[in-house]
Amino acid sequence: MKPYVLGIDIGGTNTVFGLVDTRGTVIASASIKTAKHANINDYIDELYTEVMRLIEANDAVDKVHGIGIGAPNANYFTGTIEDGVNLPWPTPIPLAELVSEKFGIPVAITNDANAAAIGEMTYGAARGLKDFIMITLGTGVGSGIVINGQVVYGHDGFAGELGHMIVKRNNGRLCGCGRTGCLEAYCSATGVARTAREFLEIRTEPSTLRNIPIDQITSKDVYDAAINGDKLAKDVFDYTGKILGEAFCDMMVFSSPEAFILFGGLAKSGELLLKPLRTAMEMNMMGCFKGKAKVLLSELKEADAAVLGASALGWEAK
Amino acid sequence: MKPYVLGIDIGGTNTVFGLVDTRGTVIASASIKTAKHANINDYIDELYTEVMRLIEANDAVDKVHGIGIGAPNANYFTGTIEDGVNLPWPTPIPLAELVSEKFGIPVAITNDANAAAIGEMTYGAARGLKDFIMITLGTGVGSGIVINGQVVYGHDGFAGELGHMIVKRNNGRLCGCGRTGCLEAYCSATGVARTAREFLEIRTEPSTLRNIPIDQITSKDVYDAAINGDKLAKDVFDYTGKILGEAFCDMMVFSSPEAFILFGGLAKSGELLLKPLRTAMEMNMMGCFKGKAKVLLSELKEADAAVLGASALGWEAK
Repeated sequence: MKPYVLGIDIGGTNTVFGLVDTRGTVIASASIKTAKHANINDYIDELYTEVMRLIEANDAVDKVHGIGIGAPNANYFTGTIEDGVNLPWPTPIPLAELVSEKFGIPVAITNDANAAAIGEMTYGAARGLKDFIMITLGTGVGSGIVINGQVVYGHDGFAGELGHMIVKRNNGRLCGCGRTGCLEAYCSATGVARTAREFLEIRTEPSTLRNIPIDQITSKDVYDAAINGDKLAKDVFDYTGKILGEAFCDMMVFSSPEAFILFGGLAKSGELLLKPLRTAMEMNMMGCFKGKAKVLLSELKEADAAVLGASALGWEAK
Repeated sequence: MKPYVLGIDIGGTNTVFGLVDTRGTVIASASIKTAKHANINDYIDELYTEVMRLIEANDAVDKVHGIGIGAPNANYFTGTIEDGVNLPWPTPIPLAELVSEKFGIPVAITNDANAAAIGEMTYGAARGLKDFIMITLGTGVGSGIVINGQVVYGHDGFAGELGHMIVKRNNGRLCGCGRTGCLEAYCSATGVARTAREFLEIRTEPSTLRNIPIDQITSKDVYDAAINGDKLAKDVFDYTGKILGEAFCDMMVFSSPEAFILFGGLAKSGELLLKPLRTAMEMNMMGCFKGKAKVLLSELKEADAAVLGASALGWEAK
């Protein structure tokens, strides 16, 4: 078997790619701007040029076993990027086909959260676990579900959209998916900022967050204020953790995972989020599951995580 | 391979068992009373005597490949019936071990809803489906989840308790599990009766259900009234179907099944339940899943279903 895989993480702004060996070491990595080219073929051309430069510089020509790609709304079964995604090209995009034709190397693609789950299972906090749920807390809430050692794709490749479980049935917040009350509308970085704005409007107590124009408040601002002891900001994290913990209880009755693994910007809030999250899990868990599921933080270095996760998929590309 | 399996369905009242061939025909079946013996060994002794009588009468001695047992709270991994179950013996009960020692035949056990899912996949409405969710609507709400052709057991064997997803976060009904707001408290036969009582107390409109003492109303009474055009009774089914359909949307974002398969007494309500259920699914489904999942009724004859489902597990007993 050839000794390397290539991992590509396609985000709305940057496309990061890296050459990875069998032990999960990122040998070298680089990036291009995703949105520079209005035509997908021009984008693939630039990607090819830059990737080949990286491969040649690391003496890896003809040594790449497969290419794994993580991208928003990427479907493992069809190899395409489906509708409803923030990329500059018309969808659906037959990405696996385009890349494998250009590179002459087998390609497998999946969405970013599934890629993260595969990376965590192969190289991170989920090593040795056969049943876990990866939750990515970023601009949105993504998820990658692993059951019996296999990523759950569902009958159509779209399974694992746990950010769109309904956590508030009445009077819920509008979500990017067009519905209301989704987990993502509350427990993403965006959701945290929305909660802060809501609390600031409804409550009258002082808060250092009142020094920031209300529509410019970010989750980072809320984090900073909470760390500095701001009561309202801490309440925002309590609220967020409680909703997430209650949602974890519903996920638990579905697949009874051994662990929930948190990844993404908001996961770095540490105990501010984890404490109310664990409390909500203890208080709301069905009896037979009490105390069973661990909540772990991703062990992948953030700079490498997306590329590593995607690359792990490269080993199974054919 | 030996040509028969034995399926045993252990319920709180009756234990039904049947000899089944490779095509899923129940060759012969019989039953004993589950609660007759206070000691589990006496129960196993009687079961053995009666099963052997059946086996001998059908010329099947030494022709039984395996025994599959469906029982409440039965754990596939451990082979035991766990705590919290309405059976006359102290738990945990090492059922697989007791039965395999007595019969000298390999035994596999699982809970009743998983057995139903396996039966449906092997002989019923789920033939050919690799991703589906079986929902049993009886006294409680049970579930058996199949992903990529495999029953989901989770890390501890307890996965698939979808009757205990929280569908009402505030002011929810008390559930048998000790928590409040579970799906089971609304969409089981018991839940339907509770809804009828609630509606009768809160509303003032006439209803034929008012002729029945309120604490004696059953789901069958509600069904009969609805079929006869009673408005309040029909509203009870609308309410039940809506909650179930909304819950299906949350299950969909988890595993994206190709179908939901309904089984159990309440599933026989037909369009009374199915119409509001489908409407709620259409109205609440996340965009990428709209119109994808079928809602099917079990195709197994009820008298045979539990035994057939359990027996299918007998083929994989070792």
